[in-house]
Amino acid sequence: MLNDIKLIVYDFDGVMTDNRVMVREDGIESVIVSRADGLGVNLIKEIGIPQMILSTETSSVVEARARKLGIPVIQGVGDKKKVLAAYCKENKINPNNILYVGNDINDKEVMGIIGYPVAPSDAHLDIKKLAKHTLETKGGYGVVKELAEILKGRMRNGTAKQQ
Amino acid sequence: MLNDIKLIVYDFDGVMTDNRVMVREDGIESVIVSRADGLGVNLIKEIGIPQMILSTETSSVVEARARKLGIPVIQGVGDKKKVLAAYCKENKINPNNILYVGNDINDKEVMGIIGYPVAPSDAHLDIKKLAKHTLETKGGYGVVKELAEILKGRMRNGTAKQQ
Amino acid sequence: MLNDIKLIVYDFDGVMTDNRVMVREDGIESVIVSRADGLGVNLIKEIGIPQMILSTETSSVVEARARKLGIPVIQGVGDKKKVLAAYCKENKINPNNILYVGNDINDKEVMGIIGYPVAPSDAHLDIKKLAKHTLETKGGYGVVKELAEILKGRMRNGTAKQQ
Amino acid sequence: MLNDIKLIVYDFDGVMTDNRVMVREDGIESVIVSRADGLGVNLIKEIGIPQMILSTETSSVVEARARKLGIPVIQGVGDKKKVLAAYCKENKINPNNILYVGNDINDKEVMGIIGYPVAPSDAHLDIKKLAKHTLETKGGYGVVKELAEILKGRMRNGTAKQQ
Repeated sequence: MLNDIKLIVYDFDGVMTDNRVMVREDGIESVIVSRADGLGVNLIKEIGIPQMILSTETSSVVEARARKLGIPVIQGVGDKKKVLAAYCKENKINPNNILYVGNDINDKEVMGIIGYPVAPSDAHLDIKKLAKHTLETKGGYGVVKELAEILKGRMRNGTAKQQ
Repeated sequence: MLNDIKLIVYDFDGVMTDNRVMVREDGIESVIVSRADGLGVNLIKEIGIPQMILSTETSSVVEARARKLGIPVIQGVGDKKKVLAAYCKENKINPNNILYVGNDINDKEVMGIIGYPVAPSDAHLDIKKLAKHTLETKGGYGVVKELAEILKGRMRNGTAKQQ
Repeated sequence: MLNDIKLIVYDFDGVMTDNRVMVREDGIESVIVSRADGLGVNLIKEIGIPQMILSTETSSVVEARARKLGIPVIQGVGDKKKVLAAYCKENKINPNNILYVGNDINDKEVMGIIGYPVAPSDAHLDIKKLAKHTLETKGGYGVVKELAEILKGRMRNGTAKQQ
Repeated sequence: MLNDIKLIVYDFDGVMTDNRVMVREDGIESVIVSRADGLGVNLIKEIGIPQMILSTETSSVVEARARKLGIPVIQGVGDKKKVLAAYCKENKINPNNILYVGNDINDKEVMGIIGYPVAPSDAHLDIKKLAKHTLETKGGYGVVKELAEILKGRMRNGTAKQQ
């Protein structure tokens, strides 16, 4: 079932973070992410599935994190569904082959058009209802790591069956 | 019951934050807020109810957050009740039409003069006793978002009844 | 029993903070404190009991916080017991009239020579055994605020009895 | 059993931190550590066992923390097992006499070659299975402190038996 994933798309806030943001007196923002997700992104790179971040917010903190993880980011996106649909057309990806991890109501529409909607354990109730798989991990505490381990497990099982 | 709200006033610390503040060696302060509240403030703007922040503290971090949310702020306020009463007179707002979200004893007096006192789930006991509605969310974890969803729900119900 | 307190001394880390410290790449440290403690320090000032911070660490973050709270600080103290004993002598304070809030083993000795040892709820077991009063609040989440409310309550009761 | 420890090696992220990292808009990273671990490192110095940090990440935040704790650090290490094996050879330390505290899958191999693998309470399941001792403390909340108290306790017991 997860064998045909061609692209993994992450919402940022609430998926790679706990949806909170630190604001300094001068307005500079910081977020708290998990080192486990750094390992997770690398594991998925080893599997060979492309990953990207798609964020409504326009914050250079998303860029900074994407740069460190070594994956692309599209941000400042008002309508995620429209943007991802256009991206699929341009890159000839079937949305059915996309796994999307989202946590809040602004992910609802885009999660309706892709094949594998996934939610962190503390996602909005509407998102969890929509998700084909709800993770055991809360946003910001290693969501990507858990996903990577699931994908690796399925691959191993897939390989085992082929033997 | 919530149809006649003309203004929503938020205390900042303990409502939009978890009442904690990060202090750096040079005294620069930061607070942790929730992205969910960003969505919540926008939802309430769509409903059309003006929102403002009223804070005892004088900290440019409150200003920075208000700027990002796009709502006005009155801060460095010793006596919140007096200041809000004056604001109501000047702007011809009946305090009965104000919803105020507060969490601690310095919100007690002002919450006694307005129509809809609301408290986060982890507010001071005296404030929760005073509140007409206690939210399920703790301060800093999406208080405004929960409030926005309640207000949207009531509006939908109100509209339904009018049909 | 608490009527004869002439000085309140706070350990900093683990009392006014959760004993954790944020370290930045350049070694700059930050700590997270509670706005509730700001209210608490002010309440105790109104009661009229002097307050001070006594810290083993030498960190300008302690100074920054003490300045904001408007109370003195003695820091970089290897032997807290010795330093506080000298302070008492110099300022003619009987250690029996001191309330000290501490959380860890480096507070053990000094808490043995003063009248009212107090511990946050998450203090080291040895410290809680030593304490005359263990608070319900964890370090960094409003320890001073809870203490202030206890002291105010005792004062009210004391006054009531005198009538 | 713990009498023959000649070196203690700490993984950094997830052992001295909660495995999370704060990222600022400009990419500057910060981590949250525990003051209790500062006390713990000092207690172990008093016992006389050398300590070092071994980290996969290359981040000046690890260096900053090591400098404050006064212990050496080897970081930016792709293959921890290889690096520690080489270190042992060079410094004539038998790996059986090394206590290693690690939390995640990238510690698995190195923890297989040393004498005393130890895990924080919230380590990866595979690591906890491998560990000879799982601590009661979560990463970042005083892991080194708990370890120091165990080592001190064993020493006291050891001494008692010799009498």
